[in-house]
Amino acid sequence: MSVQEILETHPRALIADAAVLARCLDECGACEATCTICADACIGEPDVSELVRCVRLCLDCADACAAAMRILGRQTEAHPPSQLNVLETCLAACRACADECELHAAHHRHCAISAAECRRCEQACEALRAALTTLQ
Amino acid sequence: MSVQEILETHPRALIADAAVLARCLDECGACEATCTICADACIGEPDVSELVRCVRLCLDCADACAAAMRILGRQTEAHPPSQLNVLETCLAACRACADECELHAAHHRHCAISAAECRRCEQACEALRAALTTLQ
Amino acid sequence: MSVQEILETHPRALIADAAVLARCLDECGACEATCTICADACIGEPDVSELVRCVRLCLDCADACAAAMRILGRQTEAHPPSQLNVLETCLAACRACADECELHAAHHRHCAISAAECRRCEQACEALRAALTTLQ
Amino acid sequence: MSVQEILETHPRALIADAAVLARCLDECGACEATCTICADACIGEPDVSELVRCVRLCLDCADACAAAMRILGRQTEAHPPSQLNVLETCLAACRACADECELHAAHHRHCAISAAECRRCEQACEALRAALTTLQ
Repeated sequence: MSVQEILETHPRALIADAAVLARCLDECGACEATCTICADACIGEPDVSELVRCVRLCLDCADACAAAMRILGRQTEAHPPSQLNVLETCLAACRACADECELHAAHHRHCAISAAECRRCEQACEALRAALTTLQ
Repeated sequence: MSVQEILETHPRALIADAAVLARCLDECGACEATCTICADACIGEPDVSELVRCVRLCLDCADACAAAMRILGRQTEAHPPSQLNVLETCLAACRACADECELHAAHHRHCAISAAECRRCEQACEALRAALTTLQ
Repeated sequence: MSVQEILETHPRALIADAAVLARCLDECGACEATCTICADACIGEPDVSELVRCVRLCLDCADACAAAMRILGRQTEAHPPSQLNVLETCLAACRACADECELHAAHHRHCAISAAECRRCEQACEALRAALTTLQ
Repeated sequence: MSVQEILETHPRALIADAAVLARCLDECGACEATCTICADACIGEPDVSELVRCVRLCLDCADACAAAMRILGRQTEAHPPSQLNVLETCLAACRACADECELHAAHHRHCAISAAECRRCEQACEALRAALTTLQ
């Protein structure tokens, strides 16, 4: 809630509708945390050698979400190419991670939760892409 | 919600009670976003030259929260000195940022929101410090 | 030097020639540091209000470089779309930051140094893009 | 080299001697990259299940180095408690990672390289701690 609230007090024009933008930033934060924990849970499993691709894609997803949250969170003197590129990077990483986590969802509950969070973040990124006023 | 949910599925013993730990990780994520946006809002204000200390402490706070979220989010083979140090770093950065943002809260609504979020994160970090099972 | 050295010991096939990849990762690290310091130097200048766009683009560039370094540094189970997207994000951010820093290079020596580092990072990213074996 | 060069152009007093500070920031960048790659190399090894603690401590070390580089890189309106805390966090993470990597150095060359880099970063952090003018 605090993310939308602070966006609404920003002195410059927002790059998109405050609610759509805040939802994307909130999901990037939640997805970074969830993927960090899923990677860590995977390395703590007895069958870690089956989860190597999942660890890697969770780590990538956390890093992509972190960069997207920061670059898209800034409204002052926004630079559309960087915004759009980081949004695409986040989308690609969320999709790859969700696809992989889903393969392990039946065996590892943390992968099911991580997959669901990656899908929510993917959808929030898609909604923001459609709403970016600076790209229209 | 997804952070507590995924922590509860982790194969290793958690470093603290899942609810206390999840609240800290969630606040670190919210505080990183809020401080990133407050720093950006400050540089977008006409009186940016009055807000230099606020920008600097918001940027530090965002970086400290990011590191705390990641290091404290990991439960596998936890290393107590790193955990405690990153928690202290996050606490010090949140306090400094809240103190500074409060000085500007009457003039800039984003500073008031950022100060409140830093205080919530500070309290969540203190609660986690008291609850760290690996340090007892 | 240690980055190329450790890449050469990696158990999996590298996504590109070790020297080209290491140069890109090294420049991402140097550019993240240089842009972090340039943003900070700008907010410490008496004419900070003339440097707002420079601060913003330096902060973006540091975040893009950080994500690129991490995602491109991983060789295990590499995912080409994430790699290519983060490389494009880094390229876009370096170009935008170099263009802006160059405008201030005559007045602020830190902007001249930052611009030169962003150009080196941009070139290293372009060389890596041409060398990515997983995209061929 | 560019890090020391840009520090020497900063408009504010540096928190320490430029060469000592630059060496620490450079090592933090090199250590973040090296530990990111060592964690990734470990998950790509056939004996990944023997390397779980190494992966975890390498990931922590990369995150601690990233935060230290950014918070210590800022000179404008420096806040000594945050600086000192992040330096201690980085020191603790580098030591723990070096200790663990050394255990695997005979079997995995990437662990030997990572251990050596962590020790260099640890020493650079200790030198900076001794040189911090703002704490004197």
